[in-house]
Amino acid sequence: MPEWRKDPIVDRWVIIATDRAKRPLDYKEINEEKKTQLCPLCEGNEEQTPPEIVAYRNPATGKDTPGWWVRVVPNKFPALKIEGEITQHQHGVYHYMNGVGAHEVVVETTSHVPGLDGETEKQVEEVIWAWRDRSLDLRKDARLKYIQIFKNTGSIAGASLEHTHSQLIALPLVPPDIKQELDGMREYSNRRGSCAVCDILRQEIMERERVVIESDHFLCYSPFASRFPFETWIAPKEHQHDFVQLREEQVRDLAVVIRSVLSKMSATVKNMPYNMVLHTAPINSRDEYHYHWHLEIMPRLTIMAGFELGTGYFINPTPPEIAAQALREKQETYPFFERPLMEVHRYV
Amino acid sequence: MPEWRKDPIVDRWVIIATDRAKRPLDYKEINEEKKTQLCPLCEGNEEQTPPEIVAYRNPATGKDTPGWWVRVVPNKFPALKIEGEITQHQHGVYHYMNGVGAHEVVVETTSHVPGLDGETEKQVEEVIWAWRDRSLDLRKDARLKYIQIFKNTGSIAGASLEHTHSQLIALPLVPPDIKQELDGMREYSNRRGSCAVCDILRQEIMERERVVIESDHFLCYSPFASRFPFETWIAPKEHQHDFVQLREEQVRDLAVVIRSVLSKMSATVKNMPYNMVLHTAPINSRDEYHYHWHLEIMPRLTIMAGFELGTGYFINPTPPEIAAQALREKQETYPFFERPLMEVHRYV
Repeated sequence: MPEWRKDPIVDRWVIIATDRAKRPLDYKEINEEKKTQLCPLCEGNEEQTPPEIVAYRNPATGKDTPGWWVRVVPNKFPALKIEGEITQHQHGVYHYMNGVGAHEVVVETTSHVPGLDGETEKQVEEVIWAWRDRSLDLRKDARLKYIQIFKNTGSIAGASLEHTHSQLIALPLVPPDIKQELDGMREYSNRRGSCAVCDILRQEIMERERVVIESDHFLCYSPFASRFPFETWIAPKEHQHDFVQLREEQVRDLAVVIRSVLSKMSATVKNMPYNMVLHTAPINSRDEYHYHWHLEIMPRLTIMAGFELGTGYFINPTPPEIAAQALREKQETYPFFERPLMEVHRYV
Repeated sequence: MPEWRKDPIVDRWVIIATDRAKRPLDYKEINEEKKTQLCPLCEGNEEQTPPEIVAYRNPATGKDTPGWWVRVVPNKFPALKIEGEITQHQHGVYHYMNGVGAHEVVVETTSHVPGLDGETEKQVEEVIWAWRDRSLDLRKDARLKYIQIFKNTGSIAGASLEHTHSQLIALPLVPPDIKQELDGMREYSNRRGSCAVCDILRQEIMERERVVIESDHFLCYSPFASRFPFETWIAPKEHQHDFVQLREEQVRDLAVVIRSVLSKMSATVKNMPYNMVLHTAPINSRDEYHYHWHLEIMPRLTIMAGFELGTGYFINPTPPEIAAQALREKQETYPFFERPLMEVHRYV
């Protein structure tokens, strides 16, 4: 069973992931190349993953067989496990609890493409619906407090499989980074009587210097205090605290924006590795209407080294104004081949 | 001039390092190999670095010439610059200030060895004295609030030069990670009437499960909530809030412990990349006697990916009890060749 452990000094929890436990001998000399023979996420290899939780698939096809276009499966090496009650323990100065939670993989397409920008707009929409559907389903579990949706692309950014996929970890605690944002936005709102993100969007749209893409419903921009070169945030122009409030026309619009910015990133630096995270209000919070959900895309062209890990500060060698201009000027190119999509058959 | 920028939502500052500015075209396709022809840190190449700030050298030799054994130089591409007053600015919802600070490199030895464990105990002592001397000198500058000493080893851990070296960044703000530790230790001390780190050391020494090395003056152990596989902390057994309180017999002892744990790490995974950070009380603080300074060594065998960057949580696949046992059992091997050392001639 995985374990949550709390640092006795600061409010920092660590997941000791016994199910992906690595013994000292498992760490080879670094820089060793590994290539999987068979991609467990490709169509036809469904038996390589744990049984599917849900799939958007042709109704005439069976579970864990071809015929799907988006498929959600449990992570084979989960950081947290869904079974059991949460029990807290103390041992001397130390606190820990069992590692309850959920860890799922969203297989974003049947074919072995490395990025979401290699897919059609329609397909990206379907992935967004899958994120939303799984969020809605998991929030029924009263033990869970927050659902972190994220995507790692490129091995430098932590992707162990090349086939484009995203992940979802459902947590029994509200994570520190979300708490910080909640507190910051609440404080801003109390002080100024407006939403911090709404005010940021207004200023960015007026100044345009850091805008990458503006669509009907979303703004994609390089944040003023970007931590990473080419970092972008995508936020709904309308104030929404919770990602699941997303309406159909917004999903369509968001798909276009995500695909477009990823394509601009690839056109700027080939195979730009990145992490994408979805920040939204905690589950069933009644007090978080001042929150404003958004996506953060963090390219991994710099390395977080001793200074960053020791202080919590970031050093970014590329001013966001320059990054935004470069991204803005890039032409999107979409390497996908148009494939006929099955009729949409959604889970929730 | 570099610039400090504050995130408008959370209390997070970013250094936009204009002096190491990278234009979009500077980012090549990743994974490209680069090898420097000439190591600027090797003896004989002194003209490759900015003029030395201080060096422990044979008094018969001149500045920026051979004859030194530890040499401190300004970073050629500084994240922050020492000149100027700190001026704060506001632009709409955004705050920023100019990038005042200092960024120095401690060249830890004359010869091109990749790690401190490749050096003699005496040499490691000299490096510790250099850290202390530079700390004492820089804290005379009233604009500075904190001095972060750190060391990156291995390119995965952010080292751009192979020749063993450490760095020092002096900051006009107390960093968030230090603030968190200060707050955590203060709160612990108010609640329990004792020091959190002293209590941790007591429990670790009693239980021994996570102890890697115990010496007369220091304990090196795998923290209960280790964020990284093989993470270790080295803390003085005696309560000291400030690193510069270090006495001569402690320096000797610390050199042995640092060298030994680095050697045990190399013996566990060849070329284990790591970051080492020194956490100490802020400069001239009168209220921080409850703080307990320590070194944190963070091996970089795992990748911080979307989950970590999105939540602030860490996933560690190797329980610290297993890591500590593996390190404890490893025999130290020292690849250094004993070289005659110059008579010590210290700066402060």
